[in-house]
Amino acid sequence: MTGIEVLPVEGVPEVNAGDDLPEMLFEAVGDILRSGDILVVTHKIASKAEGRIADLASVEPSEFAKDFASRFDKDPRHVEVVLRESERIVKMDRGIIISETRHGLVCANAGVDASNVPGKDTVCLLPEDPDDSARAIHEHLREKMGLEIPVIITDSFGRPWRVGITNVAIGVAGMNPMSDYRGMEDPHGCPLEASVLAVADELAAASELAMNKTDGVPAAIVRGYPYEPASGAAEELVMPPERDLFR
Amino acid sequence: MTGIEVLPVEGVPEVNAGDDLPEMLFEAVGDILRSGDILVVTHKIASKAEGRIADLASVEPSEFAKDFASRFDKDPRHVEVVLRESERIVKMDRGIIISETRHGLVCANAGVDASNVPGKDTVCLLPEDPDDSARAIHEHLREKMGLEIPVIITDSFGRPWRVGITNVAIGVAGMNPMSDYRGMEDPHGCPLEASVLAVADELAAASELAMNKTDGVPAAIVRGYPYEPASGAAEELVMPPERDLFR
Repeated sequence: MTGIEVLPVEGVPEVNAGDDLPEMLFEAVGDILRSGDILVVTHKIASKAEGRIADLASVEPSEFAKDFASRFDKDPRHVEVVLRESERIVKMDRGIIISETRHGLVCANAGVDASNVPGKDTVCLLPEDPDDSARAIHEHLREKMGLEIPVIITDSFGRPWRVGITNVAIGVAGMNPMSDYRGMEDPHGCPLEASVLAVADELAAASELAMNKTDGVPAAIVRGYPYEPASGAAEELVMPPERDLFR
Repeated sequence: MTGIEVLPVEGVPEVNAGDDLPEMLFEAVGDILRSGDILVVTHKIASKAEGRIADLASVEPSEFAKDFASRFDKDPRHVEVVLRESERIVKMDRGIIISETRHGLVCANAGVDASNVPGKDTVCLLPEDPDDSARAIHEHLREKMGLEIPVIITDSFGRPWRVGITNVAIGVAGMNPMSDYRGMEDPHGCPLEASVLAVADELAAASELAMNKTDGVPAAIVRGYPYEPASGAAEELVMPPERDLFR
């Protein structure tokens, strides 16, 4: 019975703007990674390395941000950063902004988050292009190790109809983020319909189980999953509005 | 570095209506299960054991079902079953019905599915009460083994804004389906906000990676995840409409 392992990555030092994250990850996992492994990394450390941190002291909130913040006892500078990171507001209520980011991701507060960031007045933004962040790590590991290790960058999103957040893939490199069973048959010879699995999201979710939020475990290795090597990008997981039956 | 393992459960025979699924699962995993393990089971075999299979030959479609089916080249009897399993239609378009089931689950075709069911004219419905299905297995394993093994029943759902389906928990017994970090602090002493993780959904997603749809692997064991023992139910994962910011 061969299964899948999800291994927490420990020993990654605190990441700061300008740090060489691909090299830091290589130093943390170079001795552990094997061919066939997938490296899953929380976006927080990619954002920090890329300087995607906003110092609220330098943010001048708009009137719109001030008005919304005052009604819900929020920091207007934080609201302003959320608005700047949003391409479209999906919903604004009870002090929470659900927005669509430039990446096409729909999430609370455009992914802007104050936790796991040093300093009281700093917030963390999503990476500029999480697929690029994944690719940089993927390519660095290839150069250093000669291995094609798929890389997934994650964040935790809420979703309609269900309680709680789950980890999803916002950046992917080196693998097909989907597994497409269409055209295949089940054991009874019946065609499998509507069976495109978002495996990168499932891998992100699996990894979260090994990355305790309070422990400072910013990455995990998934071993034993038969992924499909491909150039791949999390961009492919963004549903075009005209095809979205759930929207 | 202790991680999490996801082990496919093989050797479960074909399940038929009236079969004693808890006993069949015990026979398949009794020698493997250890204290601390979680057993994740695809709803398909629970539905079959519970006789939640519809024979389309005996279904008389309504005019409404016939009209919708004719416009999208669908089987009107299949559409009729979907309507009967729906408490509310969320969206109807392009031959697909997104509905809310009696359980409060929002999914395509009310979870009615023709794959992995023997017979050309049979479809599989969701279990009557998937939390009950989970509880029956949980209690049977306790009786036979003296172990408290949490059980999760899964299905694969689509979701708004993102491509592909992912496995989610539609039935839970023996554990808290959520992990609540609210009130806790990150390593920088910053409070973790909005951090209720739907860990049962993440466990369902992780298990899917070990349950290849075409292989007939209907269950998986998750080993090494520090779940919170509780009576628990997947019902808790259904978001009350008035609290749902994404809806």
